[in-house]
Amino acid sequence: MKKTLLTCGLLLGCSTFAHADPLSAWNDTAAKQSIEQWVQNATKEGSPAFIPTDKRYVVFDNDGTLWPEEPLVFQIKFIVDEIKRQAPEHPEWKKDPLLKAVLDNDLKKVMTFGKEGLLKLVTLTQSGMTTDEFNQRVANWFDTQKDARFGCRYDQMAYQPMRQLLDYLRENGFKTWIVSGGGIDFMRVISQKMYGIPPEQVIGSFALGEFSLTDNGTQIRKTMKGAFYDDGADKPVAIHLFMGQRPVGAFGNSDGDLQMLQYTTANPNYKTFGLLVHHTDAEREYAYDKQPGSGGKLIKGMEEAKAKGWTVVDMKQDWKTVFDPALCPAK
Amino acid sequence: MKKTLLTCGLLLGCSTFAHADPLSAWNDTAAKQSIEQWVQNATKEGSPAFIPTDKRYVVFDNDGTLWPEEPLVFQIKFIVDEIKRQAPEHPEWKKDPLLKAVLDNDLKKVMTFGKEGLLKLVTLTQSGMTTDEFNQRVANWFDTQKDARFGCRYDQMAYQPMRQLLDYLRENGFKTWIVSGGGIDFMRVISQKMYGIPPEQVIGSFALGEFSLTDNGTQIRKTMKGAFYDDGADKPVAIHLFMGQRPVGAFGNSDGDLQMLQYTTANPNYKTFGLLVHHTDAEREYAYDKQPGSGGKLIKGMEEAKAKGWTVVDMKQDWKTVFDPALCPAK
Repeated sequence: MKKTLLTCGLLLGCSTFAHADPLSAWNDTAAKQSIEQWVQNATKEGSPAFIPTDKRYVVFDNDGTLWPEEPLVFQIKFIVDEIKRQAPEHPEWKKDPLLKAVLDNDLKKVMTFGKEGLLKLVTLTQSGMTTDEFNQRVANWFDTQKDARFGCRYDQMAYQPMRQLLDYLRENGFKTWIVSGGGIDFMRVISQKMYGIPPEQVIGSFALGEFSLTDNGTQIRKTMKGAFYDDGADKPVAIHLFMGQRPVGAFGNSDGDLQMLQYTTANPNYKTFGLLVHHTDAEREYAYDKQPGSGGKLIKGMEEAKAKGWTVVDMKQDWKTVFDPALCPAK
Repeated sequence: MKKTLLTCGLLLGCSTFAHADPLSAWNDTAAKQSIEQWVQNATKEGSPAFIPTDKRYVVFDNDGTLWPEEPLVFQIKFIVDEIKRQAPEHPEWKKDPLLKAVLDNDLKKVMTFGKEGLLKLVTLTQSGMTTDEFNQRVANWFDTQKDARFGCRYDQMAYQPMRQLLDYLRENGFKTWIVSGGGIDFMRVISQKMYGIPPEQVIGSFALGEFSLTDNGTQIRKTMKGAFYDDGADKPVAIHLFMGQRPVGAFGNSDGDLQMLQYTTANPNYKTFGLLVHHTDAEREYAYDKQPGSGGKLIKGMEEAKAKGWTVVDMKQDWKTVFDPALCPAK
């Protein structure tokens, strides 16, 4: 929008530029129309659905909502890669059945260790180092790794329609937040660049740090103390803790986002908006959320969407493109 | 500033208006000059001390920095008043030595119960109810209670020089945050109105909530789970958790703010600013921070301020007014 205005300023008359569609990656279906209608009413003073600027807070899940989560959540891929990177310094890891499974790429076996196994891997790769060291490791990983199927860097794989939606909402005075099960420090490394969202508007799973003085300054060391998993019924809890007010719009893709949508759309003061991204496009992305038991399942959410009038985005029907062709061209 | 510009717009020529001093409640001493110099350099492109807008994050303690903390921290007064308000429904409280001491106004005795006693009082008055109920109780308390010495409502007792400083920093592109030992939910009730700071930029002591569905919506109930006391070495930890980047300016008044100032002023990327409010004015406010053992003591901070070039505000010398005369006139 800024670009458009600038162009118009330079060219004087420019009606075609000025009407460039901010949601051009969306097909002109009911999903897109429901978004536009809500935003138009929310920003029209005097409308019964008007929302004052200081209440226009909207929350977005990340995995499966703003970028893919199949075949493996990207942060889990980071964890696996970190274990492999550090393995030469830790010959003893080969004797550990969980770590051996990771090093052998036997992810099915890794899964048999359940939540406890995941916690152990998180502890190994995301605690013990300083926050600066961790940020550097994450940045290096994003700089060097690519998705196996699409051949793109992970930080170039934002869904283009959702990236446009974030811009569109901000242009209309909304404050955009991420509320994700992903690690808060992990996501903050790329949130500004990928989504235009500053670090303080990223809420995620977290644990507390430990502050200390060093020879030439200060540091915060990551620990697992007070570990908080930002998912399900704890998403509204985290929203209250970090944001301190109830949002007016919530965007998710799985039953882990259900309570966030319930909390948001039960806001008694404003006409709210709820949206679920339904993964139906095996050709351009993945189709995986219909079956119970699959990653990021969407069962209860679909039922409740019908009852409550939430918008369900059918990826295959409603999105013109999935990834930004300039960043991650279709093969 | 906005008002000034508007006035100028209407009156055309208005050089005297345009030069209205945004820090008029400060005497023209070294403290004020150090603030102005840092801000001028931080906002001057090309200056070696320039700070880009998206890094201009500054953090303020609340008790003793933005409003008084003597003779009793205001939130402790709230807790005492809440115990008294609820006592008629709890005849059994009279048999409890701690609660009896509260009801008898025997604060010296209350103090003998130490941290454990305080935790019990916090649990009684700040958990168990929904966040909406709690906010309502806090709002009612601010609406009805006045400070015994000054006769003003607590939410009219912001230090005028600091309130001007917040505005001045925001006008220069800084994002102002509160980082306080006070309860995060408690402060958020009044932060916008008193300081122009929205709820999400208030960091404080917190505990987790519990989300649930109700007959006609959703609720978050306050618990003591994961209780975090935002003071001392945990202030930088909370800043990292909520803000996700290191500030460039820190403003405090006691040794509980020491690590926050250390963390901020050790920011390796920018010319930073540290400031301590020194309570030297028994006539207009209080003089209490010199003696070890008194509330909000400032001993280590004074030493480190000298070594590190932090600004120390001598309230008596450096402030023209303490409270805004329009809100809380001197008697």
